[in-house]
Amino acid sequence: MRRMKTMRDMGEHAVIAALTANLNAAGDDCAVLPLDHEYDLVLTSDPLIQHVHFTAEAAPEQIGHKAVCRVLSDFAAMGAEPQYLLINLVAPPEQDFQTLEKIYAEFSRLWKLYGAEVVGGDLAQGPVLELHVFGVGRVPKGTALRRCGAKPGDCIYVTGPLGCAQKSGKQFTFEPRLEQGRALRESGAVTAMMDISDGLATDLRHILKASRVGADLDSSKIPILGTLEQALFDGEDFELLFTSPQAFDFPAIGNITGRTEELRLDGMPLNAKAFEHFRK
Amino acid sequence: MRRMKTMRDMGEHAVIAALTANLNAAGDDCAVLPLDHEYDLVLTSDPLIQHVHFTAEAAPEQIGHKAVCRVLSDFAAMGAEPQYLLINLVAPPEQDFQTLEKIYAEFSRLWKLYGAEVVGGDLAQGPVLELHVFGVGRVPKGTALRRCGAKPGDCIYVTGPLGCAQKSGKQFTFEPRLEQGRALRESGAVTAMMDISDGLATDLRHILKASRVGADLDSSKIPILGTLEQALFDGEDFELLFTSPQAFDFPAIGNITGRTEELRLDGMPLNAKAFEHFRK
Repeated sequence: MRRMKTMRDMGEHAVIAALTANLNAAGDDCAVLPLDHEYDLVLTSDPLIQHVHFTAEAAPEQIGHKAVCRVLSDFAAMGAEPQYLLINLVAPPEQDFQTLEKIYAEFSRLWKLYGAEVVGGDLAQGPVLELHVFGVGRVPKGTALRRCGAKPGDCIYVTGPLGCAQKSGKQFTFEPRLEQGRALRESGAVTAMMDISDGLATDLRHILKASRVGADLDSSKIPILGTLEQALFDGEDFELLFTSPQAFDFPAIGNITGRTEELRLDGMPLNAKAFEHFRK
Repeated sequence: MRRMKTMRDMGEHAVIAALTANLNAAGDDCAVLPLDHEYDLVLTSDPLIQHVHFTAEAAPEQIGHKAVCRVLSDFAAMGAEPQYLLINLVAPPEQDFQTLEKIYAEFSRLWKLYGAEVVGGDLAQGPVLELHVFGVGRVPKGTALRRCGAKPGDCIYVTGPLGCAQKSGKQFTFEPRLEQGRALRESGAVTAMMDISDGLATDLRHILKASRVGADLDSSKIPILGTLEQALFDGEDFELLFTSPQAFDFPAIGNITGRTEELRLDGMPLNAKAFEHFRK
């Protein structure tokens, strides 16, 4: 008998690709659907799971911050405006209530800062603390920034320094780049955009695949926190990564090339290496 | 030192009430938000967690069915039309892929049946199999059926028989009452509506609280699968429970009274007893 394939055998990206093959999932940070003559509807969801996305050392406010701001960062990546959040909270019976109160206080604080209001959700029992945040927002019709428009010759930009987001605690305190995302959309000059959650190298590959182009990064231009390797592979930076033929007041870290799906660093091919769920 | 309050001490409903005290959560099956001049936006989310909402004996198709149809039932309860779904899938690394394929095949089947399309979601590692389904839909402006409009003298109706939904397997095969929900909304004669997920007795209390009324149930009129106690307390029936001053071609099981939040069965007060997350 052939052994069944497990999630560990396949890895996160292969499982997502196989499961969504029959669905209309574009693979952008958010799903974009027609809403009315003025706006498109923008939808996204992100899970935050104890022992995976945070540990017992994380403060309640940090957990709440990361859960909501990961979703807000997805909206920033499309140049979209978040409006409503629904949150499924999972907790074990022995979960102390005070921690949850502090998590929800952070939701209220973020609502005042970014305008995304928690309007619903659910509460259920489970083995560990989890927050599943679902976001609803909008973007002017046909203007959402996607991963598929990068062109050879475009410059590659990031909105801030990369690396060590887990070690430095930035993963729990980052500001979602909503303002920058909106301004970049309004510029009309951005060809592709996403946020950096899995690391520059992995996430840039998503743009290369969606746009059918290649890229050459210049290591001396990448704004680094820690080492170059950390900047390329750590992830959870939640800065925006975008391409444009125009000049912008952000670090330009390389260029889009015509060599489909080939990622180079200083002219040399860069091997795949990144955190991926289920694989070690 | 005072011992910290846990989820088990407080129970699901008290925790939800405390956490959402500062939020605009109306406590209906879905959140209803302004969309445009023609429609309101309708949002809901439901978790489905192994060992809580299903066991290892459940077939993959059953798991997928229950996860999505619980959300569709929330739309039915508002008289709303579901349009889009996002699904956060949580699974342990040893999860076999074939099970997930079968779950997603059920999503595709339900999409064709009920028109709610999976447009996004996420995949993450966790201790047990979980599906968090988020639903987006709409309802003609100002017409969503809520829990707060029941009036003394209204009849209380259910759309089908109650009880034994776990034992009979109905929890995994039920048809969300979308057509009935829409027809009831279009009748213009329904004063309050919700779906029965926690059991008739518990869910009717939600209507009594939201509407500031009481109810008197007639046990001989309740359509029963199993015993009267099972019909009152089992839950997961996913039939619609609604109130109206008009006659409908559904079982009329009692009347709304002016005795605020008092639930009677055959004229005698009915004590609270129901499944509640975190309490045993």
